Amino acid sequence: MDYGSPLLTRLVRGLTRLPGIGERSAQRIALHLLHAPVEESRELGRLLGELREKVGFCPRCGFYTEGGLCAICADARRNDALLCVVEQPVEVLSLERSGAYRGRYHVLGGVISPLDGVHPEDLNVDTLLRRLDEEPVAELILALSAGVEGETTALYLAERLAGRALRLTRLARGLPVGGSLEYSDEATLQRAFEGRVELK
Amino acid sequence: MDYGSPLLTRLVRGLTRLPGIGERSAQRIALHLLHAPVEESRELGRLLGELREKVGFCPRCGFYTEGGLCAICADARRNDALLCVVEQPVEVLSLERSGAYRGRYHVLGGVISPLDGVHPEDLNVDTLLRRLDEEPVAELILALSAGVEGETTALYLAERLAGRALRLTRLARGLPVGGSLEYSDEATLQRAFEGRVELK
Repeated sequence: MDYGSPLLTRLVRGLTRLPGIGERSAQRIALHLLHAPVEESRELGRLLGELREKVGFCPRCGFYTEGGLCAICADARRNDALLCVVEQPVEVLSLERSGAYRGRYHVLGGVISPLDGVHPEDLNVDTLLRRLDEEPVAELILALSAGVEGETTALYLAERLAGRALRLTRLARGLPVGGSLEYSDEATLQRAFEGRVELK
Repeated sequence: MDYGSPLLTRLVRGLTRLPGIGERSAQRIALHLLHAPVEESRELGRLLGELREKVGFCPRCGFYTEGGLCAICADARRNDALLCVVEQPVEVLSLERSGAYRGRYHVLGGVISPLDGVHPEDLNVDTLLRRLDEEPVAELILALSAGVEGETTALYLAERLAGRALRLTRLARGLPVGGSLEYSDEATLQRAFEGRVELK
């Protein structure tokens, strides 16, 4: 499609690469910005240009940060005795939204999935074990997705943690099987936290 | 919502201002860009930053251009005898996509709508009359929306053009292709009956 402007054409094409944005939505967004106050596109342009320079991942837990420890790791009021293991940083957002949890997090970076080429050594397991050595963690809560791969990863972690004086739990079966944390509603996440069960 | 990064929070908020983008979609887009190849967000940032500096409106017809006459006005192969009046530049895109028309365009900038504070003098009517004086236009096709305001505007233009040696037409009204009788509104059905054509 020719928009009568190479820049407009490139912008629409770039927008269609975003998740959930088709050709029609991309056109609508680009033309909206062409007619909206000029500051709207400039501000977005600035933020996108700076995004990857400024925003990175916390060296301790793997959540988003603009440098140094993330806001959660740096927050002295969080409960050091609780450590919650999630697959991806976006899931920290979902759990924080639920308000069900006030401990700390550890982002694993995925789950074991040999078919997708993800093996235990690809996950942030060593950094997790080091944190357990250094931090006063009493309970490790596995908040992994409720599918086969999440289960496999939970069992693998349980093996690696055997012998430690540590309560190991996983979220209750409140999560719909096959559902991801990111799209769970807040009530479901609260139930899942309340009903977390002991892993042997 | 706190994303653990002021920039990320501002980016998500900025994205929700775009048409069709809610909070969840905005989050999904921002986090996608945080994990995608860095060039994806940089390129989008660059294009958005340049959008309003580079892309403007054709001084003759009002369609998009990156400077000087637009690609359609500058195209010597278009039919100078046909001039199609549309409300907004985006409608030029729709007509071009249809491939139904090879003449020239004139963007009116809206339709007469006193309730919305749009009066004849707010539209590009004077520039239209000047083009009719200067260009060899034989037929002026009104491609305005099929509501009361479009009709009012068409009548107003017909009055202003009275006495000129010019064929004045408007797009046909009737059933949309693929549309069923069952789901067509009464006004459309009335127009479809009035405009019925002989089948040989």
